[in-house]
Amino acid sequence: MRWAGWGDPAKSRELPDQVLKLLHDLLGVRPPPAPAATLESVELPPIALPEPLLRALAGVVGEEHVLTSRADRVRHTRGKSTPDLLRMRAGDGSDAPDAVVLAGSHEEVAALLRLCTTERIAVVPFGGGTSVVGGLQASRTGFAGVIALDLGRLDRLRSVDTESMVAEFEPGVRAPDAERLLAAHGLTLGHVPQSFEYATLGGFAAARSSGQASAGYGRFDDMVVGLTVATPSGDLDLGRAPKSAAGPDLRQLLLGSEGVFGVITSLRLRVRRAPAERLYERWRFASFAAGSAALRMIAQEGPLPAVLRLSDENETTFGLAKPETIDPGGEAGCLAIVGYEGRPATGREGVGASAAGPGISLADRRDAVAGVLERMGGEPVGEVSGEEWERGRFSAPYLRDALLAAGATVETLETAGFWADLPRLYDAVRLTLLGELGSPLVMCHISHVYETGASLYFTVVTAQEEDPVAQWERAKAAVSAAIVEAGGTITHHHGVGRDHLDAYAAELGPVGVAILQAVKSRLDPAGILNPGVLIPRTG
Amino acid sequence: MRWAGWGDPAKSRELPDQVLKLLHDLLGVRPPPAPAATLESVELPPIALPEPLLRALAGVVGEEHVLTSRADRVRHTRGKSTPDLLRMRAGDGSDAPDAVVLAGSHEEVAALLRLCTTERIAVVPFGGGTSVVGGLQASRTGFAGVIALDLGRLDRLRSVDTESMVAEFEPGVRAPDAERLLAAHGLTLGHVPQSFEYATLGGFAAARSSGQASAGYGRFDDMVVGLTVATPSGDLDLGRAPKSAAGPDLRQLLLGSEGVFGVITSLRLRVRRAPAERLYERWRFASFAAGSAALRMIAQEGPLPAVLRLSDENETTFGLAKPETIDPGGEAGCLAIVGYEGRPATGREGVGASAAGPGISLADRRDAVAGVLERMGGEPVGEVSGEEWERGRFSAPYLRDALLAAGATVETLETAGFWADLPRLYDAVRLTLLGELGSPLVMCHISHVYETGASLYFTVVTAQEEDPVAQWERAKAAVSAAIVEAGGTITHHHGVGRDHLDAYAAELGPVGVAILQAVKSRLDPAGILNPGVLIPRTG
Repeated sequence: MRWAGWGDPAKSRELPDQVLKLLHDLLGVRPPPAPAATLESVELPPIALPEPLLRALAGVVGEEHVLTSRADRVRHTRGKSTPDLLRMRAGDGSDAPDAVVLAGSHEEVAALLRLCTTERIAVVPFGGGTSVVGGLQASRTGFAGVIALDLGRLDRLRSVDTESMVAEFEPGVRAPDAERLLAAHGLTLGHVPQSFEYATLGGFAAARSSGQASAGYGRFDDMVVGLTVATPSGDLDLGRAPKSAAGPDLRQLLLGSEGVFGVITSLRLRVRRAPAERLYERWRFASFAAGSAALRMIAQEGPLPAVLRLSDENETTFGLAKPETIDPGGEAGCLAIVGYEGRPATGREGVGASAAGPGISLADRRDAVAGVLERMGGEPVGEVSGEEWERGRFSAPYLRDALLAAGATVETLETAGFWADLPRLYDAVRLTLLGELGSPLVMCHISHVYETGASLYFTVVTAQEEDPVAQWERAKAAVSAAIVEAGGTITHHHGVGRDHLDAYAAELGPVGVAILQAVKSRLDPAGILNPGVLIPRTG
Repeated sequence: MRWAGWGDPAKSRELPDQVLKLLHDLLGVRPPPAPAATLESVELPPIALPEPLLRALAGVVGEEHVLTSRADRVRHTRGKSTPDLLRMRAGDGSDAPDAVVLAGSHEEVAALLRLCTTERIAVVPFGGGTSVVGGLQASRTGFAGVIALDLGRLDRLRSVDTESMVAEFEPGVRAPDAERLLAAHGLTLGHVPQSFEYATLGGFAAARSSGQASAGYGRFDDMVVGLTVATPSGDLDLGRAPKSAAGPDLRQLLLGSEGVFGVITSLRLRVRRAPAERLYERWRFASFAAGSAALRMIAQEGPLPAVLRLSDENETTFGLAKPETIDPGGEAGCLAIVGYEGRPATGREGVGASAAGPGISLADRRDAVAGVLERMGGEPVGEVSGEEWERGRFSAPYLRDALLAAGATVETLETAGFWADLPRLYDAVRLTLLGELGSPLVMCHISHVYETGASLYFTVVTAQEEDPVAQWERAKAAVSAAIVEAGGTITHHHGVGRDHLDAYAAELGPVGVAILQAVKSRLDPAGILNPGVLIPRTG
């Protein structure tokens, strides 16, 4: 992973001249005045943790698992939001941890939490490092120091139960490794968010991730049937059955807890049989409203495909994945991607080989979905090749690096709401961004649908001002307030972190905030876990 | 509702002589020594709440909404478990509330909670009064008195949003009224537990109810997209979107909270289009194991019918709903009920008229399910008429009253687990009951399935000893311990109440218990809400 960007440097992209010209002509983008910092030139704070505490940490995990090199500290500094990258490109490493500590077992995690409680060391649980909401940026105030608790050594598939269709994983398994390990059993999670290449299973759970095939495979929180969590006050082991009436579902209190209540050390996940066949198609609708109505019909009356995604007019026109095809004057309508994964047979004989949801065949499912889409005004416009889909699905973060280097700020934000509220929410976000950023390019898609509502995912491109971080933070604060005001949730799948704290407090209300604070005080009385993240301060 | 039994007295059932003989011959059941108490002969404690406090309560809700008559107090005493009924039949009204208070609005509920906090009055939120786990039996210790907070006046459908398919209800709406109100819009909840005739929507949410058509319509907690809750510390308003990554899902902390954190005053529920057609069929399997494997296949690879239920060998033979057909020597195998609800068309043109889950037609769905059941060794044995199904689905609690009067104890208990754990769980429960109760009749069915597991629902019939309550409590304690030991959850849909407290504490572990206690202390610092229910005591 690039330390001040996204992904494998070998996959980095250059922007074609045509796109650079378009950025300049449409948005006034011009190259930034200074070159990006190098790893060696990043300004790091001195290591605050005194030697005896570093030795005490090494006493738990072994000396070779306490890392304090420049590269290790930089690579565990903040996450991968655009402001995070802009700060790193500017050489600002002020949020670097004092040390990176790699735990090798549940027991070591628990022992570290006890030690850090006693010694008042802040702990940032660290999986793939892909937070885009400041979820890895702990507060130092009142602490002897800050460590990143890297879970990368907890990387095993512990068991597979093909009768219950449950697999037990350690939290540090990266998504591609999880799929590789499951594929050996003919199984899959089917969880493919844009962070797929780097993100870990523990991170997916802690941040309530949702993937590109959520229509068929569900959100990550739907997949979690059990969790083991180490907290400073002891262990939690949750999930004796898929569902229960034994009180509140405490799994749902740990899912989305972003490391502030404890560290997930084991996950029991619902798995599916790996699909034998995949098919992705494009559909065109006259407008975002018409396409939304079709997606709603599918979500409410099904059957659901594995992937269901609709771009608005702007995203259809400027489709970031293929910048060379941009035609700003065109009338493309709105494109949807509809993907099917399952068994190929059309008969009933092989119902037992399905993957995504109910076991009707891919062909039957495709027929049913296509019938609804056509009835709702959709027009099929051809298959997407598997290669094209693979290439497109993870490309946006790579493209972002090229855009940042060219002097454009590109960032994403997302929300969700009930169907009847979505038009108002869409307008509120768009109008606020247009008002705050001059004339940015604002694009949107729906990528996750439910019977009662859907998510809206926005991509914004604008020319960098002199202080692009401050520029974005201003716009972000305004748009977050607009989302709260319009009745949406502040995040559908990115999480709260630090960036959404104010809006989250408004969304929860004071009694909701009080609940979080009460749980926090009880489980982590010294407040060492990810301080400053998720839990709004009151007063 | 009968005050010491179940349901409409007009629907009460007599046991045929043939069944009485069978009970005597098989189980040694003989008529109880004393006749059941009358409403007038029940021993009630004196009203502990002093006049000024009763007047203060009346100051909030109006004098006509504070009820202290014998009948009102008796009818709000405990719930409808078999020990509850046995105690009432024995004339024991010692847990009666001092008064029944009917609130007419959210504001009145909130004001009552403030008043009761100040005056240390325990509050038992009361919906349909159908708890079977002691969920309405509050502790008096340390309180000036106990009131039942009856939510029956909060009985309105507040809004219907047919775009989002969300209906907002007040909590005191009984299930049949909810269905009647929704039917006027062509909609349904599809939530039909055995308590359907009396239970309320607020109670379903507070106790995580699951209905007989859960395979198609989901559990009640799946239907709740939003909640408003009045707590002694202020209001909570949860659910801005179907799903969110904005921290823990606090809806899931209130669902299943059994009135100990607050009182639900509004519910936003996902609704479905009412089905145009229903079809229920019987299938026979060679054994419970063979039938379970078939249900598992359907749950994992679908598509799901609306109703999916499999009786074990004993329940098939003694099928309580039709006692006149019992043939203890027969080899009936195991019967399953498979029910479909949806639109009748077989073509794709009308996908928009479905009810239960994905919108494939009833006929297509039936074909797909039947294909799996046949492949797994099932044999179709005919349709169940709608009338027969209607009559059978709610009859068991009526039959229980007749059995209690005849000198038999009949009670149900349930659990859930992952598929691979179910055989062990099934054996543990059966063997424990057989060991504790001599030679009772133990029957079981699976009525709720998930991809990763299922519920087991047991019915036990045994001859009453001299103290039938103590007899059952002994057996219940042993079987609860056995469930915990075998790795199941202590309850799939009955809830925790008082009866499951010990097992629940073992299931949660000390850190889980600490979480509940922390939330309780913060929201209800005086501990007035349903004291003694749900939250295990530690120490």
